[in-house]
Amino acid sequence: MEGDKRIERDPFGEVLVPKFKYYGAFTYRALENFQFSDLRIPRELIRALGLIKYAAAYANLRLKILDKKVADPIMQAAMEVAEGLFDGEFPVDVFQTGSGTSTHMNVNEVIAARASEIMGGPRGASGPIHPNDHVNFGQSTNDVFPTAIRVALLELINKRLLPNLDALYEELLRKSDEFKDVVKAGRTHLRDALPVTLGQEFGGYATMIKKARMEIEKTAQVLEELPIGGTAVGTGFNTHPEFPGLVIESLREITGLNLREAENRFEAIGSADAFVAVSSALKNLACIIIKICNDLRLLSSGPGTGFGEIEIPALQLGSSMMPGKVNPVILEAACQAGVKIIANDVCVTMASQLGELELNMGMPLIAYVLIQSVKLMANTCSALSEKCIRGIKADSERCRAYAESSTAILTALAPIIGYEKTAELVRKVLSERKSVRMILAEDFGMGEDEINALLDLKSMTRPGFFKKSDAQ
Amino acid sequence: MEGDKRIERDPFGEVLVPKFKYYGAFTYRALENFQFSDLRIPRELIRALGLIKYAAAYANLRLKILDKKVADPIMQAAMEVAEGLFDGEFPVDVFQTGSGTSTHMNVNEVIAARASEIMGGPRGASGPIHPNDHVNFGQSTNDVFPTAIRVALLELINKRLLPNLDALYEELLRKSDEFKDVVKAGRTHLRDALPVTLGQEFGGYATMIKKARMEIEKTAQVLEELPIGGTAVGTGFNTHPEFPGLVIESLREITGLNLREAENRFEAIGSADAFVAVSSALKNLACIIIKICNDLRLLSSGPGTGFGEIEIPALQLGSSMMPGKVNPVILEAACQAGVKIIANDVCVTMASQLGELELNMGMPLIAYVLIQSVKLMANTCSALSEKCIRGIKADSERCRAYAESSTAILTALAPIIGYEKTAELVRKVLSERKSVRMILAEDFGMGEDEINALLDLKSMTRPGFFKKSDAQ
Amino acid sequence: MEGDKRIERDPFGEVLVPKFKYYGAFTYRALENFQFSDLRIPRELIRALGLIKYAAAYANLRLKILDKKVADPIMQAAMEVAEGLFDGEFPVDVFQTGSGTSTHMNVNEVIAARASEIMGGPRGASGPIHPNDHVNFGQSTNDVFPTAIRVALLELINKRLLPNLDALYEELLRKSDEFKDVVKAGRTHLRDALPVTLGQEFGGYATMIKKARMEIEKTAQVLEELPIGGTAVGTGFNTHPEFPGLVIESLREITGLNLREAENRFEAIGSADAFVAVSSALKNLACIIIKICNDLRLLSSGPGTGFGEIEIPALQLGSSMMPGKVNPVILEAACQAGVKIIANDVCVTMASQLGELELNMGMPLIAYVLIQSVKLMANTCSALSEKCIRGIKADSERCRAYAESSTAILTALAPIIGYEKTAELVRKVLSERKSVRMILAEDFGMGEDEINALLDLKSMTRPGFFKKSDAQ
Amino acid sequence: MEGDKRIERDPFGEVLVPKFKYYGAFTYRALENFQFSDLRIPRELIRALGLIKYAAAYANLRLKILDKKVADPIMQAAMEVAEGLFDGEFPVDVFQTGSGTSTHMNVNEVIAARASEIMGGPRGASGPIHPNDHVNFGQSTNDVFPTAIRVALLELINKRLLPNLDALYEELLRKSDEFKDVVKAGRTHLRDALPVTLGQEFGGYATMIKKARMEIEKTAQVLEELPIGGTAVGTGFNTHPEFPGLVIESLREITGLNLREAENRFEAIGSADAFVAVSSALKNLACIIIKICNDLRLLSSGPGTGFGEIEIPALQLGSSMMPGKVNPVILEAACQAGVKIIANDVCVTMASQLGELELNMGMPLIAYVLIQSVKLMANTCSALSEKCIRGIKADSERCRAYAESSTAILTALAPIIGYEKTAELVRKVLSERKSVRMILAEDFGMGEDEINALLDLKSMTRPGFFKKSDAQ
Repeated sequence: MEGDKRIERDPFGEVLVPKFKYYGAFTYRALENFQFSDLRIPRELIRALGLIKYAAAYANLRLKILDKKVADPIMQAAMEVAEGLFDGEFPVDVFQTGSGTSTHMNVNEVIAARASEIMGGPRGASGPIHPNDHVNFGQSTNDVFPTAIRVALLELINKRLLPNLDALYEELLRKSDEFKDVVKAGRTHLRDALPVTLGQEFGGYATMIKKARMEIEKTAQVLEELPIGGTAVGTGFNTHPEFPGLVIESLREITGLNLREAENRFEAIGSADAFVAVSSALKNLACIIIKICNDLRLLSSGPGTGFGEIEIPALQLGSSMMPGKVNPVILEAACQAGVKIIANDVCVTMASQLGELELNMGMPLIAYVLIQSVKLMANTCSALSEKCIRGIKADSERCRAYAESSTAILTALAPIIGYEKTAELVRKVLSERKSVRMILAEDFGMGEDEINALLDLKSMTRPGFFKKSDAQ
Repeated sequence: MEGDKRIERDPFGEVLVPKFKYYGAFTYRALENFQFSDLRIPRELIRALGLIKYAAAYANLRLKILDKKVADPIMQAAMEVAEGLFDGEFPVDVFQTGSGTSTHMNVNEVIAARASEIMGGPRGASGPIHPNDHVNFGQSTNDVFPTAIRVALLELINKRLLPNLDALYEELLRKSDEFKDVVKAGRTHLRDALPVTLGQEFGGYATMIKKARMEIEKTAQVLEELPIGGTAVGTGFNTHPEFPGLVIESLREITGLNLREAENRFEAIGSADAFVAVSSALKNLACIIIKICNDLRLLSSGPGTGFGEIEIPALQLGSSMMPGKVNPVILEAACQAGVKIIANDVCVTMASQLGELELNMGMPLIAYVLIQSVKLMANTCSALSEKCIRGIKADSERCRAYAESSTAILTALAPIIGYEKTAELVRKVLSERKSVRMILAEDFGMGEDEINALLDLKSMTRPGFFKKSDAQ
Repeated sequence: MEGDKRIERDPFGEVLVPKFKYYGAFTYRALENFQFSDLRIPRELIRALGLIKYAAAYANLRLKILDKKVADPIMQAAMEVAEGLFDGEFPVDVFQTGSGTSTHMNVNEVIAARASEIMGGPRGASGPIHPNDHVNFGQSTNDVFPTAIRVALLELINKRLLPNLDALYEELLRKSDEFKDVVKAGRTHLRDALPVTLGQEFGGYATMIKKARMEIEKTAQVLEELPIGGTAVGTGFNTHPEFPGLVIESLREITGLNLREAENRFEAIGSADAFVAVSSALKNLACIIIKICNDLRLLSSGPGTGFGEIEIPALQLGSSMMPGKVNPVILEAACQAGVKIIANDVCVTMASQLGELELNMGMPLIAYVLIQSVKLMANTCSALSEKCIRGIKADSERCRAYAESSTAILTALAPIIGYEKTAELVRKVLSERKSVRMILAEDFGMGEDEINALLDLKSMTRPGFFKKSDAQ
Repeated sequence: MEGDKRIERDPFGEVLVPKFKYYGAFTYRALENFQFSDLRIPRELIRALGLIKYAAAYANLRLKILDKKVADPIMQAAMEVAEGLFDGEFPVDVFQTGSGTSTHMNVNEVIAARASEIMGGPRGASGPIHPNDHVNFGQSTNDVFPTAIRVALLELINKRLLPNLDALYEELLRKSDEFKDVVKAGRTHLRDALPVTLGQEFGGYATMIKKARMEIEKTAQVLEELPIGGTAVGTGFNTHPEFPGLVIESLREITGLNLREAENRFEAIGSADAFVAVSSALKNLACIIIKICNDLRLLSSGPGTGFGEIEIPALQLGSSMMPGKVNPVILEAACQAGVKIIANDVCVTMASQLGELELNMGMPLIAYVLIQSVKLMANTCSALSEKCIRGIKADSERCRAYAESSTAILTALAPIIGYEKTAELVRKVLSERKSVRMILAEDFGMGEDEINALLDLKSMTRPGFFKKSDAQ
């Protein structure tokens, strides 16, 4: 029955582990020692650790360090871990040893126990497969853990974030085209400015996303350099010189990622610079996401008391008290996601300064936070494009009405009558509460055609200016 | 069977909800709309929302707005929610409407359904109790949600954080006393400085914790002002003028907290200032925790290649590769917790600027992050005091050896022979690699007693200085 | 002539210092070594250092450590430095030794040289007064510098920041009263919500400022504990036991501040916790300033294309290209100031973690950044109240028009006909583009009086709700 | 005489400006309105604005919009401004209009006045050249100011930061080679680990710098896209369609930078994404600088009470109280610089979210902070390489002694006798306080040659491991 325990040993003494569990004494101690939070190492990192253990066993087999009868069950067990069959076996807190050793040994123990089981032996320390001497041969937490973070991040970025960014970009581009003739007031300092088209605004958003996507793709390449093979301090002592090459070859085949050996393993182990760079790129994107969402919140504000230039899809009731209220909920969730990602970047920045010399000691925190940021960003992009942007409609009439009510359109006169006279005219329009057209007719004796030419709002959304000859 | 569904309706149409679930259409929409993350609203906030719903129903009963036959089952259901009996019913993502409406309506729906059930009716919209008209009468997310965050935080701070801080303080104080005669080298700029006692160092840590504790206690008082009764925009429209007073009376009785009505409900609803203040106080404590942990890591560094002035308890093996290595794992976990709490403060700071006018729209994120910080800090304090500080031992010999090897002890001569001559002496000691004692004997013709008086390290850990008369 | 140089010496050799300069070899080295930035130690800190040097000389005189003929000129010179007569003599970069030793020795050298001059001797090292042996007797950078930062901050907070906060609070309160009858639409999620008065909004802002002011005043009290007397590592070795008491007595008399000895000098020297706490309090205020400014920017947006509910004073032309444009420039400058202060808090937070054991090594940076934040905040408050808030005018008509166009006012019906029916009504109003009044007349057969009673917007800005009896 | 004033006018009335000043009413108003701080727009931005004004006048001349007799003096005046001849004429506070209009108009006014003077006319508004109609023709703050920031940053990055990074990299590489045979203890978690060479550590640092340099160079390319030609809202209205191309052609020629037209001017004006990206890259480098400096502080700690593995150049006395103390002042200044740059990144990140729609309103703050960061980083790199790294010496004996005292070297036995037995051996060495060599001889009966082979520390700094055959 499940309540049964088995004895495991380590240099600190004996511990009792539930019989049905695969993990052993190391994991048990970690569970006792680390009761800080309910944050757990994410699935994506367990997968990456499983893949590395598979590749390591295979490399040690090819290097004739492990026998086939030992390597085969390890490889099978490791792949099962990678595929998620043992996800209940990794209960260690994110807040643990700064190197991630507790989670790493947790993985070694589960794989060893499972491999022993596959060989027909008992689970745990009494089995034929040893977590350190076999599963971990030629490896150290200090090269394995940062390698795993890199692989996990690359898989997430390539398979989830970049495609979702592409979809968001496409959606914004479509809207830019759809709204290319919707003329509206530009606003600078939240004050009346020259007209733009709604399409131009969405085109700007599309370009922001495109550039951020390019930066992320480019920056993620720093993750392709893997420290594996550096072992404990970067030197590679206690592993075979050909080990890293073989491991990476396997990882490349399994994941399809463009992985390679670190140019310098001391940098790759002692510094968290690659993670800081990726975190920064996510932060930069988050700034853009918040900017776009805040703009859309403003443009869709109302219906009675706001700008109401666009309408965003109504997804749910907005208020527990005010019936019929509809709120921009996806935009709000996205803003909060953006803020979280920016704060996560501060977390990674500061964690990069934990530790010294041969080891950064913020590894599990960096792993947790960065993987969270990538997934949150990927989901945010898809929610934005599918549940908000795609369904946005323009209120062209309202857009035009605002554009016409902006005294900034008198700027068209400045090249003809000069800045100062135009400024006087603007003050007159505002103080006498007359329309721009009225003033042009009364004060300048302009005819309607002339006024129409001057105030052709659509033409004001393109380069060029009126000369005296245009207006006469 | 559990696979069965029931129909629920909202203005957007019909939805199918699992029959065994208590939540309804509003929650269902939220689940569909918000698929951003695996972060969920913490138990402590659900508890606070349950308590508020209990108190609200009771207030509306006393104000004769709700009948006893309606109020009673609502009160029972609300208390069951507060006590955690329905924790599986709150699946909405933290990243949701910025006001927290989705979680708030989730609570209203579950309580309404459960109350209907208690009354013998069916769960869901067809039951006799309505989530908005009964459970939520006189309330709005905009006053309920920030009220709930305040109550949840106060309970956590008072019942978990402050006691753990007290324990940590006591432990540091005990060590300060235990080590009061362990003389050691002071180090400034990581360079040889005048001696201190190890007890003085721990006494300094104790005071840091004490002051931070005082600041947290004091700051947390801003949370005692509850916005409940402000309803949607702070005015209190659509609720009875006596409602907030009655609700808070009940909350005070149940929780034992010193709760009161907000001085100004517009401030309490529109601004997140109270949360920012509490987050800052936690950040300030986190800075101290990291400082202390980094000092202890340094003092315990080694055993062969570091300072080794103290020994911290060995809790588990430290390395997957280097046998016998023991690492300062609790200190490392605590440093990471400190970094997370500092980053969470940036999150709250930035989230305080989401939204505008009558509503802050970062509420669920603020709630999640702040509650996480308080719990993480409480656990960090207890891990530190119980698993690390308590077991620290001093290596008095090593401490003294370092103290004697510090040329800074020659500073005792400065009041007698002046700064410049003393500086020359120091350079001589260092360049000729002689001991301080040798130089004093050779160059100053001092006898052993005289030297002993001058270099009485313990006396150097107290105010006072040598005058010519002392040394002669 | 000024081009002349004099020779100064230190253990590293001889240096040539301009004859007319008072500083010596230590300062000269610092100028050579630190060429990082154009940031210089602010006047306020030089003043505080001067005051401390005055008080220290006076204390050493009373303790009979210094002769009157030495102490008197030092006291005079120190007071001249405090008063700003030698501000051109402190050219050392903010980015210097982490303890601030370079600036501290700069002050010691200038005072020694000036005191020597007063005594009729030559400036510089050959004079009768020695920077270390006389001016600095019984002191160390590690207690003097953090003492000086505390004194400088307290003077700034008490004499400039708090009065300006009071003035801002008063101005907001006056506006709250002035606008108490201006009914307007509330907005939550930037969407139509129940009405509020403009006075209520300003009252909320006033309370935010008041609370932040209280927090700053309270927090600043941590600065009143001075580490002076701790000397190099907190022990007080090499100073007279009565020295700190006497120094602080003098400082209290000169500044009128409530200064006292640190409860624990190891905490006060080794930790930057007091500075982090003050920085956080400023950050919290900055969050509020930005919130208020963003609200005011929104309310004053337009004139044609925005909310236009209030008008802020026009102070200058807004655009180099669009004639007649006026922008909310003070609000924008204040938002940028707020952001700078928040970023400065991150700076202080991270600088608090530089250094270890007996010394924080971010002192000059902390001093610079915190003094900048206090002054910037003081100026921001005064600019806001005098150049913006004071001149704000309400557009009551526009406010009312928005309030009436908000379908949220139908919420008044919810207690009578229920949430769901009211929601349907709202949808009808919006989709049929009819007015609320029309619908009430048509669908509910309400007479004008009844409608007026129900839609009495002013009464909606107070607690209470309509019952069936009210509406019939 | 200088006290004389002249009258200038703007729509707000008349102002009195000192006669000898070139700026006019707009600048005067800005001085009155903005009294927030003593921060001023840096020289590098004034230069860039001058260059743009030169290029704009030349473009308008070629487009026949400006006459040669107007364009020529503007071009001359603009170039004089760029060259710094009028640096005393730009007194406007950094905290000003969010677009930078005040500084932009300041530049327009000074150039107009100087150009009028060149033409023989009076300075100021009565002169023949108009700041808006001539100097600013076809331009708006909203395209000019962000263009100027980009040009200023690119010049600083290319001419100062990258060369200094190269020099720092080269210095580290040289040290890596110099120290390639210095074997020392590796330290992970600040605890004894496998040996490395000091050269490997410096090689790691070199690679960190190299990668960060590559990232900065790559990221800075986003600045090469200039928004000029977008005018007020990105559309380019009121400028000639060929204007941006001509302006950029001139700028490219003058600066030698690879400048080009923005792919999308709405993105380039409305978003601060390019600045956020550059700021992040600087932050990433700052993290590395702090990491390296903290490592070097640790390695050079002592001399009596620390690691003392390396010696850094002594540059100045370290303490006002402890004679002969020498501190790692350059490393400390560099750490503070790193912290400032990280905080500046938070500033830019948050400033990127000021403003909305067609304008970011944090421009002057972003400009100030980013230019500060680039210069500070450039100076930090040069101080580090020239005043610290270059003079570092290794204490090879101490390095070796530590390496031999690390029980981690027993890890070499693990592949032979297994992890668990090796762990027991380590515990024995530590508890019995015997040397590793003694234990190997006693317990394993190893001869000296065998032990020497096993404990060949240098070979432990390379990949590979001992097999049973090696050890027997």
